[in-house]
Amino acid sequence: MRHRIQTTKPQQFINITQRVADEVRGSNVENGIAVIYVPHTTAGITINENADPDVVRNMIYALNRAFPVEGEYLHIEGNSHAHIKASLMGSSCTVIIRDKRLMLGTWQGIYFCEFDGPRDREFFVKIIEG
Amino acid sequence: MRHRIQTTKPQQFINITQRVADEVRGSNVENGIAVIYVPHTTAGITINENADPDVVRNMIYALNRAFPVEGEYLHIEGNSHAHIKASLMGSSCTVIIRDKRLMLGTWQGIYFCEFDGPRDREFFVKIIEG
Amino acid sequence: MRHRIQTTKPQQFINITQRVADEVRGSNVENGIAVIYVPHTTAGITINENADPDVVRNMIYALNRAFPVEGEYLHIEGNSHAHIKASLMGSSCTVIIRDKRLMLGTWQGIYFCEFDGPRDREFFVKIIEG
Repeated sequence: MRHRIQTTKPQQFINITQRVADEVRGSNVENGIAVIYVPHTTAGITINENADPDVVRNMIYALNRAFPVEGEYLHIEGNSHAHIKASLMGSSCTVIIRDKRLMLGTWQGIYFCEFDGPRDREFFVKIIEG
Repeated sequence: MRHRIQTTKPQQFINITQRVADEVRGSNVENGIAVIYVPHTTAGITINENADPDVVRNMIYALNRAFPVEGEYLHIEGNSHAHIKASLMGSSCTVIIRDKRLMLGTWQGIYFCEFDGPRDREFFVKIIEG
Repeated sequence: MRHRIQTTKPQQFINITQRVADEVRGSNVENGIAVIYVPHTTAGITINENADPDVVRNMIYALNRAFPVEGEYLHIEGNSHAHIKASLMGSSCTVIIRDKRLMLGTWQGIYFCEFDGPRDREFFVKIIEG
């Protein structure tokens, strides 16, 4: 349920789909939902394209243009941009489980979104039957 | 559980509240949650005002100003703006069910958000009792 | 399950973590998820830092820069900026429950996000066992 993840860059999207899918397959739950949760305030989670790595690089680029790393902020730690990006991506995502499999679209992957790395991070997976 | 939807514009918010409400009413679940999930990477889902259509038009306008269609992106397909907008709106939303009804606010509607249309799309509804 | 909240400023993030935690502790549910839901279209909900109040002030500042209060919008009520911010933060958040406690990160708090206040508002908490 608790997964460790090591980020290696200041801003980075890491595909965690396989780790979530493995936990779902290893559970006894045939149908339900999986909630993937990030317990950090400068990292988030999102679902987006898994094929072309330029897509997630463009997402980081677009977020930086609208919410610059070196913007005018009050917070003195210098990571204010990371807090707003974490809330924009969100702290959790929910995926439907059917026949022990994540019902993701063909091109969808689940991404851990680092905005203030590199750091040791973690995420939680919670499976609800139903 | 699987719903087809046809979008007709490049960017468009389509109100799907009635379709979700009908599925909830037709289920045997009195109380719980409904998860509405979009299996695409250039479309999303959100909850916002159902009364004045200018509201969702303004939302598309505001997203385009912050994340331009013709921005500087690496991704060569030309739909990079659509990927970031999809993640900003999110791939799912969750609504509470009480007495077989969606507990939406008076002015709330559930919107399928197309950012790279027109296309044949789909969304899933999953009901969890509890 | 239904909680009232009074906002006092046009834009304001109010920490509601304790109210959610109290409801979880008072329920008979040991493990599961809590869905916190906002039934408004100009207010949202997010999870972010609970320690330094400058963080949430910076988040409001950053949102205003990307989505100005006085922008060019069609909607005549003058609160278009509030609708897009509500969708960006989202209408619900989901937190995992373990041993009757919210599995929040050390620095995480749950925030009701007012974007068109001051107003009388409400939020719902729904607990799903599992």
